[in-house]
Amino acid sequence: MGIPSDLEIATAASLRPLHEIADRLGIPQDFVEPYGRSVAKIDLDVLTAEGQPTAQRAKYVVVTAVTPTPLGEGKTTTAVGLADGLSRIGQTVAVTLRQPSMGPTFGIKGGAAGGGYAQVVPMDKLNLHLTGDFHAVTAAHNLLAAMLDNHLHHGNSLNIDPRNITWRRVLDVNDRALRNIVVGLGARIDGVTRQTGFDITAASEVMVLLTLATSLDDLKARLRRIVVGYAYDGRPVTADDLGAAGAMAVILKDALNPNLLQTIEGTPALIHCGPFGNIATGSSSVVADIVATRRADIVLTEAGFGSDMGAERFFNVKCRVAGLRPDAAVLVVTVRALKAHSGRFKITPGKALPPELLAENPGDVRAGIANLRKHIQIIEGFGIWPVVAINAFDTDFDSEHQVIRDLCTEMGVKCAVSTHVVNGGAGAEDLARTLVDALRTPSRFRFTYASDAHLTAKIEAVAKQVYGADGVDFAPPAAKALAEYERLGFGGLPVVIAKTHLSISHDPSLLGAPTGWRLPVREVRAAAGAGYVYAICGDMRTMPGLSSHPNAEKIDLVDGEIVGLS
Amino acid sequence: MGIPSDLEIATAASLRPLHEIADRLGIPQDFVEPYGRSVAKIDLDVLTAEGQPTAQRAKYVVVTAVTPTPLGEGKTTTAVGLADGLSRIGQTVAVTLRQPSMGPTFGIKGGAAGGGYAQVVPMDKLNLHLTGDFHAVTAAHNLLAAMLDNHLHHGNSLNIDPRNITWRRVLDVNDRALRNIVVGLGARIDGVTRQTGFDITAASEVMVLLTLATSLDDLKARLRRIVVGYAYDGRPVTADDLGAAGAMAVILKDALNPNLLQTIEGTPALIHCGPFGNIATGSSSVVADIVATRRADIVLTEAGFGSDMGAERFFNVKCRVAGLRPDAAVLVVTVRALKAHSGRFKITPGKALPPELLAENPGDVRAGIANLRKHIQIIEGFGIWPVVAINAFDTDFDSEHQVIRDLCTEMGVKCAVSTHVVNGGAGAEDLARTLVDALRTPSRFRFTYASDAHLTAKIEAVAKQVYGADGVDFAPPAAKALAEYERLGFGGLPVVIAKTHLSISHDPSLLGAPTGWRLPVREVRAAAGAGYVYAICGDMRTMPGLSSHPNAEKIDLVDGEIVGLS
Repeated sequence: MGIPSDLEIATAASLRPLHEIADRLGIPQDFVEPYGRSVAKIDLDVLTAEGQPTAQRAKYVVVTAVTPTPLGEGKTTTAVGLADGLSRIGQTVAVTLRQPSMGPTFGIKGGAAGGGYAQVVPMDKLNLHLTGDFHAVTAAHNLLAAMLDNHLHHGNSLNIDPRNITWRRVLDVNDRALRNIVVGLGARIDGVTRQTGFDITAASEVMVLLTLATSLDDLKARLRRIVVGYAYDGRPVTADDLGAAGAMAVILKDALNPNLLQTIEGTPALIHCGPFGNIATGSSSVVADIVATRRADIVLTEAGFGSDMGAERFFNVKCRVAGLRPDAAVLVVTVRALKAHSGRFKITPGKALPPELLAENPGDVRAGIANLRKHIQIIEGFGIWPVVAINAFDTDFDSEHQVIRDLCTEMGVKCAVSTHVVNGGAGAEDLARTLVDALRTPSRFRFTYASDAHLTAKIEAVAKQVYGADGVDFAPPAAKALAEYERLGFGGLPVVIAKTHLSISHDPSLLGAPTGWRLPVREVRAAAGAGYVYAICGDMRTMPGLSSHPNAEKIDLVDGEIVGLS
Repeated sequence: MGIPSDLEIATAASLRPLHEIADRLGIPQDFVEPYGRSVAKIDLDVLTAEGQPTAQRAKYVVVTAVTPTPLGEGKTTTAVGLADGLSRIGQTVAVTLRQPSMGPTFGIKGGAAGGGYAQVVPMDKLNLHLTGDFHAVTAAHNLLAAMLDNHLHHGNSLNIDPRNITWRRVLDVNDRALRNIVVGLGARIDGVTRQTGFDITAASEVMVLLTLATSLDDLKARLRRIVVGYAYDGRPVTADDLGAAGAMAVILKDALNPNLLQTIEGTPALIHCGPFGNIATGSSSVVADIVATRRADIVLTEAGFGSDMGAERFFNVKCRVAGLRPDAAVLVVTVRALKAHSGRFKITPGKALPPELLAENPGDVRAGIANLRKHIQIIEGFGIWPVVAINAFDTDFDSEHQVIRDLCTEMGVKCAVSTHVVNGGAGAEDLARTLVDALRTPSRFRFTYASDAHLTAKIEAVAKQVYGADGVDFAPPAAKALAEYERLGFGGLPVVIAKTHLSISHDPSLLGAPTGWRLPVREVRAAAGAGYVYAICGDMRTMPGLSSHPNAEKIDLVDGEIVGLS
C-alpha cells in the first residue's frame, strides 16, 4: 500500500490523555481506572451510580461483511476508520471491539487492532496482555477444571462419569500438542487418569459468559450454571455443584470492567472480551456496549465474519441479552471478496494473490455479486438498514466499484467508498455521512425467533430465514441432545450455529449465495453458563497450531522497543 | 488473636494516594505507571535516566528465620511490621517482597501479604492478578513449550531427543492432574506424542529468570540461554535455537517493572516476582531491590524459609547477581518453632496446635534453642550482623522469651520482641531501634564460595560451611551431570540446593541443629537461563494439589465484595 507498517504507524501516533477520551463520552474520572498510561478500565458502577444516564440514547450500529476470503475484508479497519470519520463530521461516537487473542499474534496472523491509519492504540498492549482479561478467563476456567479433577480424586461424591466430562482446559497460545492429552498419570496421589485437552482461551465458555454478562451478579449466576459434565445417571454437573462459581467470580471481577483505549485520531474505543466467531458469539462485550450506548450519539460495534455469522448472533443473541435496540448495519465489501465469489480464483493466506484477480475485470465482480445481494437481504430480514461500505484497495478499479454501486441502486440501499486504511478518518467521511443519512429513518428490528420457541425451531429458523437453506438435517445424536436440553430446561436459550465462515452454507466450497441445500447438524452442545445452545455443522478447530516458522520467530525486543508485531 | 480477619483489616485500611508513596522514595511521577488506583508499576528507565541516583545508598537487610514449622513463623509480617516501625522512628524505608502465587490462594493456604496489622494492601489485588506478572511468566513459558513441540511436529531439524526434553509447561493453579500428562495425541496434525507435565508458575525457570534479571537486555540474554532439552548427540538445545527468546522478552517486557504498593501504615512496598523457595531462589526481584536501595535509608527484603535456605541464596545468588552489599539479617524466631525443635510436639497444618505446646514451658524452648544458635552462626558465617526478632504470640510467656534473650546475650547478638501482628508498626518500634543500632557497625560480607570455584566445590561449601554437614555424597547421575555442566560452560554459575525447609539438613525429621550427617545429592539440574545449577536432595513437589475441600469453595463475591480470601 506504500504506507508504513501498522506498528510503525501506531508507534508514531501521539496518544491523547485518557481522561480527555473519557470526557468525550462524559464518563466521570471517578469511574476511570488507569492501567498504565494509555489504557484504562471503566468501573461498571458507572451504570448504577446516581446521576449517570440509564437508557440507550445512541444509534447502535453493527459492522459486518460479505462472506470473507480467508484474508478477511477489513471489518475492524472499517469500524475504526468510520468511527474517526463520524468524529470528524461532529458526531459523538464510540467504537466497541473484541480484544485480540495473544496466541495467534505469535502464530501466522498479525495483530487485530485495525490496520494502516485505522487503528486502535496502543497497538502493542492491545495485542499482548492489555489489562489481563484473557489471563483472568484462563485462570477462572482452569480453576474449575482443577476443582473438577480434584473432585474425582477425592472420592467423586457427585458420581461424575469421567467418560462424560465436557469441561476442558484453556491457554492463550497456539499449541497443537495440547489438543488431545491424557492427564492424571503418575502415582495415586497424582489424580485420576483420563483423556481431555486444551482449547485456546478465546474458545472458553467463560470468555463468552464474560461477553454476555450484564452485571457482576449476572456473571456469577451464569458461572453457577456452567455444565462441566454429566453424572452416571445423566444429570448435568455444574460449577455450582463443585462450589467453584464464587471463586471464579472473584478471579473475573475486574475483567468485567471494559477497557478504554483510543483510535489514532482520538476516538474512544472500548475493547473488551474476544470470544471465538465460530462456536461462540464472536462479539465484544455486552457491558461495553451498554456503557457506550448510554453516552454516545452513535456506537459502532464489530461482529465476526459475514452477516450470516457475527451479525446474526449480534441480533439474535447479543441484542437480546443486552436489551439494546440495533439501528443499522454497515456491510463491508471488497472487490477482492466478490471476485473470489465468482469461483474463478483461489486465495491462500501467506501466498500472493493471483495476478488475474488484480486485473481490471468488472465481470468477475458481477459474477460474485450474488453474495453481496444475499447479505443485504439477510440484514433487511432483521428489519435493519444496511449501508454498504466499499473498503477500497489501491488495486481496485472504478468500473469494479460501479458494479457494487449498481446493485445497491437496484436494491435501494445506500453505499459509499471508504479509504480509511490509507487516509484514516478523512477517507471514511463519505461513509460517515451516508450512515448518518441512513440513520434518519428508524429501523424496525425483529428477531429471527422468539425466546420460547423450541430449540429445533430456532435452528431451522436461522438456517432457512437467514442462510437460505431448504431445511435442516439433524443427525440422531443432535436430535437426541436437543430433546435432552429441552428436558433439562435449556429450551429458552438462543442458538449459535457453528459452521464455516467461508460460505453462507456449511460447505466452504459453496461460494456466492448457495441455494438448494440443507444444513446438516452433526452434533449439538449446550453452553448453559454462557447461555446458548450451539449446533455444530463441520469441523471446528478450538486450538490453533503454529506454522513451521511462526511469527514468534520474528517478534523481538530491540533496545527496549517491540519489533515484528504486525 | 482477637483481632479482625486479614481481609477485614486490609479492607478497612485507608490507602494513601500512590504518588505520595512514590514521593517517599523520591521516584518522579514520570516513572510511576498506575495500574488501577492502588497499584503502580515503576518504569525501569528510572535506573538509567539522567539525574536519578545510580548507586546503593541504603542499608540492605534480609529478613530470614529459624527453621520454620509447617505453619511458617511470620517472616512476611515481621518484614512489613518492622518496615512500619522503622518509618515511625523516622527512617526512609522500603520493604521488598515476593508476589504471592494465586494458585495456592484457592488451595489450603490463605494469602501471603503479611497478616493482622502488618500487611501490604490492597490485599485482594496482591493475592489475585496484581499487574499480571505471573500471567506473563505463564504465557512466555508456554509459548516456548509450544514452539518446542511445534519444532518436533515440523520435522525436528534440531534433532531434539523427545525423551530428553526438560522444559515442561506451567499454570498458576493447584492442579495435581497436570503433574504427569501425555501430549500430542489425536491425529498426525495434532503433534508428536510424548510424556511431560505442568508445574505451578512459581516453579517456572522464567520466574527465577525474571527475578534475577538486572535489565531488559539482561533478561533477553538469560532467556536466550534457557535449555529446553538435549539433542540426540547430547548438545543442549536452547530457547535461542528455537527463535523464541525475542518473543518471550516481548511478553515479559512490562513484567520486569517492579510493582509499588504500600503497607497499611503507608510505607512503600515493592512486590515483585515469586519464585519457589525450594528449587529456586525464593526471593523477590533484583530490580526492585536495585531501585529501592538507591533511594531508601533502609531496605528490608524477605527470603524464603530459614537462613539455610532463603538467606543463603540471598547472599550467594541474589546479592552476587545484583551487585548489592548486604548489611544485616533480621532472624525471626518464635517460641512455637523452638518448642517444635525440641522434638516433643507434632505440628500439622490445618489442625489445632497440641495444648501442651501452648503451656508455659521454658524448658521446651531451651530444648529447641540449638536451632536458633545454628542460624545465628549461619548468618555470622557471611560476615553479617544478625538481629534476632522474637515474633511474639499471645500464647507466649516471658519466661520463654527469656530463654531466647539469654542465648542472644551469650552470643553477643542483639534481640528484640515484636508485636506487629496485633499492634502494627508501633509493636515493632523496639525491633526497629535495635536494627538501626546494629547497622551502626559495618558488616564484612563474604560469599560462601567464589564464582570460579568448581560446581562440586560450591555445593560442598554450602553443605559444610552453611548447613554443617560432614560432607556431600553425589549419586552417580549427579556427579556425571556436574562434570557435563562444567564441560558445557555452566561452571561459573552459583548453586541452589533443593532440599526440605523443615530441617537444616536434607531430612525433615532432623530437628534443631543436626550434626554428624552427610548431604546426599540425588540429581543435579541446570537452570542455565535463570543462571544457576541446582542440586536435588529429596522429593521436590513443583505442582501442588487441592485438598478435599479447597479454600476456593469458601471464596465468593457478595454484593461486589470479595469474601473468604484469608
